[in-house]
Amino acid sequence: MKPEILIYDTTLRDGTQGEGVSMSVASKLRLAEKMDQFGVDIIEGGWPGSNPRDMAFFEQARSLRLKHAKLSAFGSTRRANVKACDDSQLGLLLAAQTPYITIFGKTWLLHVESVIKTTAEENLKMIRESVEFLVKNSRNVIYDAEHFFDGYKDNRDYALKTLQAAIDGGAEFVCLCDTNGGTQVEEFKKIVSDVAAFCGNVPVAVHCHNDCGLGVALSIAGVEAGARMVQGTLNGVGERNGNANLCTIIPNLSLKLSYPMNCGGNLKKLRDLSLFADEMTNTRSDSRAPYVGASSFAHKGGVHADAANKVKRSYEHIDPTLVGNKTRVLVSDMSGRALVMMKAKELGMDIDAKDPKIKTFLNELKQLEFRGYEFEAADASFKLLLSRFLNKDEPQFKVRGYRVIVERDETNSVIRSEATVKLEVGGSVEHTVAEAHGPVGALDLALRKALYKHFPQIMDIELIDFKVRVIDSGLGANAVVRVQIEFKDGDKIWGTVGASDNVIEASWEALKDAVEYKLQNSF
Amino acid sequence: MKPEILIYDTTLRDGTQGEGVSMSVASKLRLAEKMDQFGVDIIEGGWPGSNPRDMAFFEQARSLRLKHAKLSAFGSTRRANVKACDDSQLGLLLAAQTPYITIFGKTWLLHVESVIKTTAEENLKMIRESVEFLVKNSRNVIYDAEHFFDGYKDNRDYALKTLQAAIDGGAEFVCLCDTNGGTQVEEFKKIVSDVAAFCGNVPVAVHCHNDCGLGVALSIAGVEAGARMVQGTLNGVGERNGNANLCTIIPNLSLKLSYPMNCGGNLKKLRDLSLFADEMTNTRSDSRAPYVGASSFAHKGGVHADAANKVKRSYEHIDPTLVGNKTRVLVSDMSGRALVMMKAKELGMDIDAKDPKIKTFLNELKQLEFRGYEFEAADASFKLLLSRFLNKDEPQFKVRGYRVIVERDETNSVIRSEATVKLEVGGSVEHTVAEAHGPVGALDLALRKALYKHFPQIMDIELIDFKVRVIDSGLGANAVVRVQIEFKDGDKIWGTVGASDNVIEASWEALKDAVEYKLQNSF
Repeated sequence: MKPEILIYDTTLRDGTQGEGVSMSVASKLRLAEKMDQFGVDIIEGGWPGSNPRDMAFFEQARSLRLKHAKLSAFGSTRRANVKACDDSQLGLLLAAQTPYITIFGKTWLLHVESVIKTTAEENLKMIRESVEFLVKNSRNVIYDAEHFFDGYKDNRDYALKTLQAAIDGGAEFVCLCDTNGGTQVEEFKKIVSDVAAFCGNVPVAVHCHNDCGLGVALSIAGVEAGARMVQGTLNGVGERNGNANLCTIIPNLSLKLSYPMNCGGNLKKLRDLSLFADEMTNTRSDSRAPYVGASSFAHKGGVHADAANKVKRSYEHIDPTLVGNKTRVLVSDMSGRALVMMKAKELGMDIDAKDPKIKTFLNELKQLEFRGYEFEAADASFKLLLSRFLNKDEPQFKVRGYRVIVERDETNSVIRSEATVKLEVGGSVEHTVAEAHGPVGALDLALRKALYKHFPQIMDIELIDFKVRVIDSGLGANAVVRVQIEFKDGDKIWGTVGASDNVIEASWEALKDAVEYKLQNSF
Repeated sequence: MKPEILIYDTTLRDGTQGEGVSMSVASKLRLAEKMDQFGVDIIEGGWPGSNPRDMAFFEQARSLRLKHAKLSAFGSTRRANVKACDDSQLGLLLAAQTPYITIFGKTWLLHVESVIKTTAEENLKMIRESVEFLVKNSRNVIYDAEHFFDGYKDNRDYALKTLQAAIDGGAEFVCLCDTNGGTQVEEFKKIVSDVAAFCGNVPVAVHCHNDCGLGVALSIAGVEAGARMVQGTLNGVGERNGNANLCTIIPNLSLKLSYPMNCGGNLKKLRDLSLFADEMTNTRSDSRAPYVGASSFAHKGGVHADAANKVKRSYEHIDPTLVGNKTRVLVSDMSGRALVMMKAKELGMDIDAKDPKIKTFLNELKQLEFRGYEFEAADASFKLLLSRFLNKDEPQFKVRGYRVIVERDETNSVIRSEATVKLEVGGSVEHTVAEAHGPVGALDLALRKALYKHFPQIMDIELIDFKVRVIDSGLGANAVVRVQIEFKDGDKIWGTVGASDNVIEASWEALKDAVEYKLQNSF
């Protein structure tokens, strides 16, 4: 039986150092709850000394009802030459009222001397006394040894002394941080192994970054070398190249290497947790993320897609449902008839493999892809196209035209958009106009206004994501753009695509498809 | 002295299996040339048997003047129960006229029996005879052992027999492929080590995927276990979670682990190569990519940014210029005065640290960030804003208003956009109108038309990238969108940002900033 591994999440603190990552207090609270439900052991909520938002988080977090996870507040050891009880930053850590406190201290003499400008001896005291002070105040203390690997390589004895100081102070865990992410796997493993032996009964944690593309490998190597806790972030958000990605580490440790962990029974919620974290950290979902990405179990090339059908899962390293993901068949210009059949089946369409129209459909698909369409993330548009081609469904409305006016007023810089839409629907012509701040919003309103009395159910559709990509950027502002929109209705989510050298037209196509998809599939 | 490692790139073949990756023949040719200049050893150009585009590549590639790299054509062993010389696919491989040919064969008995439906014995013959046939036709042959690790774990003896068959046929390299990307590092290392000993004088290569987030770590472990060639793709593009990322593996092997390689002297071109590959594979540049990403050496948090100034590079695992990258200071809502000063310095602005306007500027910055602006990728907008705030520069034109009309014609579905722009410039009012397919293009033209006679140099500006992001997606079509545009003029590239609940207004702001930036900085 392998030892249990604790999962320590620092998305809410180190993760927010990532470029483009920003989190409101409300988002942090929601994500903390979600992590607790998933089974994370310790959640680092923020650095009370660094900004008021983090303190507000800890205040509001007191009313969270966490089932299992313990919160930790993050900070540094006391300043040089003051008493721990007089250090205002340590005071703020206590004020956060968390069961755990994580403090970092210096390992590397270069930093002791040049950054915090004190002596090697005083640094050891800073570590021991800070830990001691927090422990006396009934906190469980995790000591983060900053730049541990650089420090160890520079001066092993001193590096170990800093850990001993933390242990003497009463630290529950000592955590070895590869702060600048520069360490390679073999070297990392040897060092962790040496330190784990040195620390004896005090368990060791590892905190890795992805600067060498090794964040996940280092964390696993750490565990194999004796570490009992892994620090990381959801989706690997974090400064520079990010922190070690817990959404990859957890399934590797649990599914591949059979380490027990508290969240081990909840892996089916992993993809959901990952997507939720993207939402809360305001990060674009990475379709290529291992295990949880939309592409993780997507098959494109003819050979593989074909074989996946023949020998179930022989081209998938795990059953995708174990992590809440699923197999997808991709539509691309490599597609043949077999792939279209598989895709149609996945979309719940019953079509005849011998229908000669499939061949003309494939040609049309190639043409559209050439013109900038991409259906991989737009199953709804693909399904509509295929249905139209096989003459299985007639569109429920016909577009006669639209016009959008966007205007910035000369006198007071008010901006407004007006859209008119003309449709044929149910035998009559609907000509509507609507106004909104933005042109897509105005078109959306005018379209719904035109359809509402025929199909009231379209009012439930919600636009949840809107992406624009310039395809042939060499053409400058007149380049073809592809608009991909995601819509939601209850628990159904569907994507559509439009492509044009006009961003409004591309958006219009995607909007129109979204509404038509809902009407065709009558949910 | 460590042994030399060969770099084998399969971006043009396996890379194109990636979701969203598409490459024209022209792009493939350009990328092959660029890889050759960088020093890649072998470039796998495509699979002549799989689609006509790949054959067209090999035909046109004959006129490339590669300095060092050798091209390889990819395919499979002969079909079961035919002679190698009668196998049409092997014939196509010869027709590609490349010095190298890479063929893959089955290692895993599950696949031998269920996918290609032949016997264990015939599979060995297929391997040996196919390699032999190609070698007799004067090709250097690399044998790719598909699903090697699954096969080895299932039946070590048979897996080794398949390699022996390739060696008996005369293969120059045998490559161990972790086809479904499921192997963990320790296990991988042990297997490669065993195989390298078995193969004796015939060198071993590794081909890894990123399904466990370990593509880079596995490749390095392979080399440390005795492999002499690494197969991978630029930026890790490829099926599912991608192939092992050469842009990370190369600097790890060269800079961190001191393995000699032909491209070792060209690492300063690495970031450039990575960006070029994004362009050619139609992939969004990953700012978080190790070594080469825009965020790799970006500092945000106060502590780190501050320390980086005090102890040069102590927070950077390598000197960024070694891989053609650079240190960046990020502007974010964690910023204080010191960070703004550093950023201003980076942008070549000479400002007084004691200027009380910096404080009001910081407040304004927070307001703008709250409203959806993000300046991290928009240095030009940041610089303009700061200049305006410190009253150092007056804008060279003043906007009085604009109007955009986008219309889809009722009768023949023609789409057109018309934009009018009214500016005050050089004491007069310019009121211009222009037409284009798209609204951003029309605005761009009208703006240039209004400014042209005052500032003819603005005609050189080229729009090269256009990104739109919905910020608060919960608001649907009326959500605030952030538009980020990149512009180019000669070798200068600059980014601007606009944010609004109106995509046209946000684009207009970014366009206007771009032009103003060029005028302010008079390059």
